[in-house]
Amino acid sequence: MLSSRAALGQARGTAAVGQPMPYGVKLPDNPQRAKRPDSVGFAIVGLGGYALNQMMPRFEQAERAHVAALVSGNPDKLQRVADAYGVPPQSRYSYEVFADIASNRGIDAVYIALPSGLHAEWTERAFAAGKHVLCEKPMALSSAECERMIAAARRADRKLMIAYRCHFEPYNLQAMDLMGQGAVGQLRLIRTEQSYRMGPTSPMENWRANRALAGGGPLEDYGIYGLQAALYLSGEMPESISATAFRPSNDPRFAEIFAHVSSQLRFPSGAVAQLVTSYDSAGINAAEARGTEGALMMQPATAYSGNEMVLEAGRDRRKFAPGDSTVQFARQLDHLADAIRDGAQIRTPGEMGLRDLRLIEAIYGSAETGRTILLNPDGTRRS
Amino acid sequence: MLSSRAALGQARGTAAVGQPMPYGVKLPDNPQRAKRPDSVGFAIVGLGGYALNQMMPRFEQAERAHVAALVSGNPDKLQRVADAYGVPPQSRYSYEVFADIASNRGIDAVYIALPSGLHAEWTERAFAAGKHVLCEKPMALSSAECERMIAAARRADRKLMIAYRCHFEPYNLQAMDLMGQGAVGQLRLIRTEQSYRMGPTSPMENWRANRALAGGGPLEDYGIYGLQAALYLSGEMPESISATAFRPSNDPRFAEIFAHVSSQLRFPSGAVAQLVTSYDSAGINAAEARGTEGALMMQPATAYSGNEMVLEAGRDRRKFAPGDSTVQFARQLDHLADAIRDGAQIRTPGEMGLRDLRLIEAIYGSAETGRTILLNPDGTRRS
Repeated sequence: MLSSRAALGQARGTAAVGQPMPYGVKLPDNPQRAKRPDSVGFAIVGLGGYALNQMMPRFEQAERAHVAALVSGNPDKLQRVADAYGVPPQSRYSYEVFADIASNRGIDAVYIALPSGLHAEWTERAFAAGKHVLCEKPMALSSAECERMIAAARRADRKLMIAYRCHFEPYNLQAMDLMGQGAVGQLRLIRTEQSYRMGPTSPMENWRANRALAGGGPLEDYGIYGLQAALYLSGEMPESISATAFRPSNDPRFAEIFAHVSSQLRFPSGAVAQLVTSYDSAGINAAEARGTEGALMMQPATAYSGNEMVLEAGRDRRKFAPGDSTVQFARQLDHLADAIRDGAQIRTPGEMGLRDLRLIEAIYGSAETGRTILLNPDGTRRS
Repeated sequence: MLSSRAALGQARGTAAVGQPMPYGVKLPDNPQRAKRPDSVGFAIVGLGGYALNQMMPRFEQAERAHVAALVSGNPDKLQRVADAYGVPPQSRYSYEVFADIASNRGIDAVYIALPSGLHAEWTERAFAAGKHVLCEKPMALSSAECERMIAAARRADRKLMIAYRCHFEPYNLQAMDLMGQGAVGQLRLIRTEQSYRMGPTSPMENWRANRALAGGGPLEDYGIYGLQAALYLSGEMPESISATAFRPSNDPRFAEIFAHVSSQLRFPSGAVAQLVTSYDSAGINAAEARGTEGALMMQPATAYSGNEMVLEAGRDRRKFAPGDSTVQFARQLDHLADAIRDGAQIRTPGEMGLRDLRLIEAIYGSAETGRTILLNPDGTRRS
């Protein structure tokens, strides 16, 4: 496991001291502001582009969460990021000494921002150290891994939350509300599309192209937003799934992963969701729900910021502006803090991540066998 | 058959003399202008809304086609429409005396605008009378019917053309050109959606809700435009199809037909088409093709007029205006005239209609069995 991390670090080219940070990262000029006394301290595990560019800068907006510790396999990066965020030397860890976080009382929770194939192992290690866990999506690469992670949380009596940020994003929250109020009438169709074109790379250069770390590829990493949207916009679980997956030949990007996954989910109401996700088509991030009375269209649907939403009903076209999308990061941090401190119920628990991995497995199962997979309400296979 | 027509005529309420025409029809103020001496004379079979509102007024724009005769089960309507178009009394037929068209040398071709379930029979009757045939889409309700129609055309040594007007519509023609030139790069995804919400009705009131006349419903009548677009935008035939179909319970509109049909076609290139068609969702007529370099978006995609088309590539967004959509009707009439007079090859022959019915049968077959249907290049089943 650690050797995978090390290999990835080398393949990416880690910055030497004094060189610019990778991923175009701009570190903060000042350490974190003081938070409430009951603020939850997070150990950030994995200082990749997502953690550095998206999540860590958003702790600033959180009321009750702060960066308390960092875990990285790159000593130089560890030092520079820790200095910028004001993380003291005793709260800087390599993977080798990760278990030492157990005795650090400033760490309440661990935020797992590692490549997906490492989520299960490091989540279990975090629970073994007695910490709560916020784990990035996808929760893991198989439902079996998810079940192990949930069991580990129970054994440790700690919270497990999946970082499904759209459950805290104003546009998606308003979309859920509108759909719940029947804004499109009876739902008939959901269509989602999460695609971009991956630049030249290979499984050794980019973890997203590496099956052991990324599973089938775009579905787990990007298409999962569309899958999630299909579920929270419909308010249903699919009763069947059919799918097809595509891998071009002789393309190093897709030596191990799929380029393109298309699936069709049928819900008990009769509504259908058609999902597409691709690492090899022109960029788009859209979700649309059409019913008997109108259509709700989101594009971009699940971006870090700048989401847009329109409701069409008859000749009316109404644009919504529920607010700043960027608050989604801080709100999910505060949400876990509330669960830890006040016992609030987690909106995006491990069970949701498990459910989604079951559906992802059904999608791949259908693509592989050319059969429609019938599902139980919990996402397990009926056929 | 005739009794079906009669029943439909009654159910719709046929207008008495002096009453306004049904379907909001406005008849022309002057008879047809003179055409070239080699203009092809068409007998219009079925004076329903589509013939009266769409096709017949567009003969005016055709260079080489004119309305030569009318066939209707409603004597009053027959008289009023014939008077308006200057069709002489000896060229006005009831269905009972349809065979008499054989001896009318002014009739070269028959335009079949009957409910879909009557296409096969009346096409065969037209060939038996020695006439060429332009048959509305869907060609028929089964591939077996299509094969009979093609055989009848061969026996009679007459032309059989399916009225797939989008093959003569400027926006769709330019879309085909752009796709052929690789305007979106390598194609990855086609999405089409042809839906509207059918008003309150029943199988006895509306032929489109009647299984014997409309087959499964929206797919044959409206979704077929999306199916066609998927084929002419991709330039491929699917190698497999999976589908799902939905019929709400206790809704007289859907006592016999499906409300909603969703399908997923996989092409040999790896591209996928996701098609949806519905008689029970908010109106839309859209087609979109996304590839490695960009996306071509059409909405409305296949309307009688007012189509729109945008090509997005990177940050460029280019709107196309290929011209007047309404010419599609006259151009398909002239196209058949050219085939009859000059031996030009028909772009939309019976074989194309047969191919599409095979795919429609595969869609229903997959929806019924929950299996992905594997196809040969001619659309016949491989599994």
